Amino acid sequence: MRIVRITKELQELSDQERELGRKIALVPTMGALHSGHLSLVELGKQYADSLWVSIFVNPTQFGPTEDFDSYPRTWEADVAACEAAGVDVIFAPTRDQLYPDSAQTWVDVADLSQNAPGGSRVGHFRGVTTVVSKLFIAAKPHFAIFGEKDFQQLTIVKRMVLDLGFDLEVVAGATVREEDGLALSSRNSRLSVDSRIQAGVVPAALEAVEGKVLKGERSKVNLLETARHEIEAAPLASIEYIKFCDPGTLSEVSNKLSGQVLVSVAISFPAGDPSGEPVRLIDNRLLNCTE
Amino acid sequence: MRIVRITKELQELSDQERELGRKIALVPTMGALHSGHLSLVELGKQYADSLWVSIFVNPTQFGPTEDFDSYPRTWEADVAACEAAGVDVIFAPTRDQLYPDSAQTWVDVADLSQNAPGGSRVGHFRGVTTVVSKLFIAAKPHFAIFGEKDFQQLTIVKRMVLDLGFDLEVVAGATVREEDGLALSSRNSRLSVDSRIQAGVVPAALEAVEGKVLKGERSKVNLLETARHEIEAAPLASIEYIKFCDPGTLSEVSNKLSGQVLVSVAISFPAGDPSGEPVRLIDNRLLNCTE
Repeated sequence: MRIVRITKELQELSDQERELGRKIALVPTMGALHSGHLSLVELGKQYADSLWVSIFVNPTQFGPTEDFDSYPRTWEADVAACEAAGVDVIFAPTRDQLYPDSAQTWVDVADLSQNAPGGSRVGHFRGVTTVVSKLFIAAKPHFAIFGEKDFQQLTIVKRMVLDLGFDLEVVAGATVREEDGLALSSRNSRLSVDSRIQAGVVPAALEAVEGKVLKGERSKVNLLETARHEIEAAPLASIEYIKFCDPGTLSEVSNKLSGQVLVSVAISFPAGDPSGEPVRLIDNRLLNCTE
Repeated sequence: MRIVRITKELQELSDQERELGRKIALVPTMGALHSGHLSLVELGKQYADSLWVSIFVNPTQFGPTEDFDSYPRTWEADVAACEAAGVDVIFAPTRDQLYPDSAQTWVDVADLSQNAPGGSRVGHFRGVTTVVSKLFIAAKPHFAIFGEKDFQQLTIVKRMVLDLGFDLEVVAGATVREEDGLALSSRNSRLSVDSRIQAGVVPAALEAVEGKVLKGERSKVNLLETARHEIEAAPLASIEYIKFCDPGTLSEVSNKLSGQVLVSVAISFPAGDPSGEPVRLIDNRLLNCTE
């Protein structure tokens, strides 16, 4: 396994792999790898010969009051996990490789990033699409593997790939969950013990919503009430949003749900670390609201 | 010579050339080719084995009141000129190849595009950097050749390449001029007969400014007066701007010029065509204002 820190070096490696006719799959991550990431690596193996994982905690997707500094960083364990998973290349660029002095170029998927419920984090998706563009330009992969856990991000990245014409295919991997249904996230490690116990309400709320939909409920107001009721069972939970959107445009749907609807939530819990920055968990479910 | 209209097809061609170890140079144009463009093709031959010219009148870099519709389009002559110049590939994408339905992704070089005198054309440089990114992603060239005539554009594209990490080298070609000094431009063909005669004041103004600088003048106010005086000799000329900037940041310099200073002008003349849209000519000169 090779560890590459310089963009130019990665580009040369990509050219070499391509000259040999080998297909490259890139799994972009911010490190603190867990089984969710590793399931994306396994998925990549079905498509490509050479498995690349990028590890970079991207400063431009964190808001000024968010947890950039306290975001978990577990470099040694990440390297071991990649080695064990059969990863061929880790791209762990230094900050100046992706953001040279006076960097000022942004890639912005305008409408989707604004519509998306997570777009309330000002500049978040612009930071994501900017760094993902840079990673694509650095790795020149044939496949890029993203998790469905951040469904909004997945939708926005797909739109960017279509609009800019990147010569690669975006592949989506299913969310991996703990026994109580909590979606795996690098941020879970930041939860206090009590927060971790109570965080099970996040998937439980989505489960309850889907249950109601299966029984015929189509009222957004009622489903919102269902979700809120589940989450309020956890006194430590603080709701940032519970939104019902069109999975294509990410804009909020009207009260009567129909067709495919994405329900997304962002719920915060107190951290176990002394940073004081709450742990923001996201999850989502695609609801089939056809008659 | 091949004519390619589909991005995916161009990407495959690029992969093939790269597998054969051949270097590609791309000359992005909006067509209506003249000797200025062809000098960029000649320059490209010094760097690359395979010479590619893109021809696309990019709607997103024109303002709503600008000359997108009346911009000259001379497809047959362009093809003949490329053939004669030994061009290997013309990439002439249909609009939907670069801007698919609901396209909404922008590439923006924030500070430079705002600082630049030409940034007063709202969204102009964002349109340029967006389409140039798409052309780079489509052609995957080793070299991209741009003219120095639009020095601001050149500076902004170089910044974008650095920031996003595009795996290519930007090469700049000198401005080609008519006998009276007028910089070649596709838009010159739109000038009325009288406008064309008077347009010689544009390079004359820059020449006069440089003459004063060589004699020791360092006052922006005085040099501005020199340029304005020259241009006002042409009654048809209408000054959009005459600006003195730092060639690196494109921000306006203070009154006492020092070091390298870029003087850029945008001057409009009446068109010879019935569109009513004036013909906007740009030119610039790099002034050496060191002591």
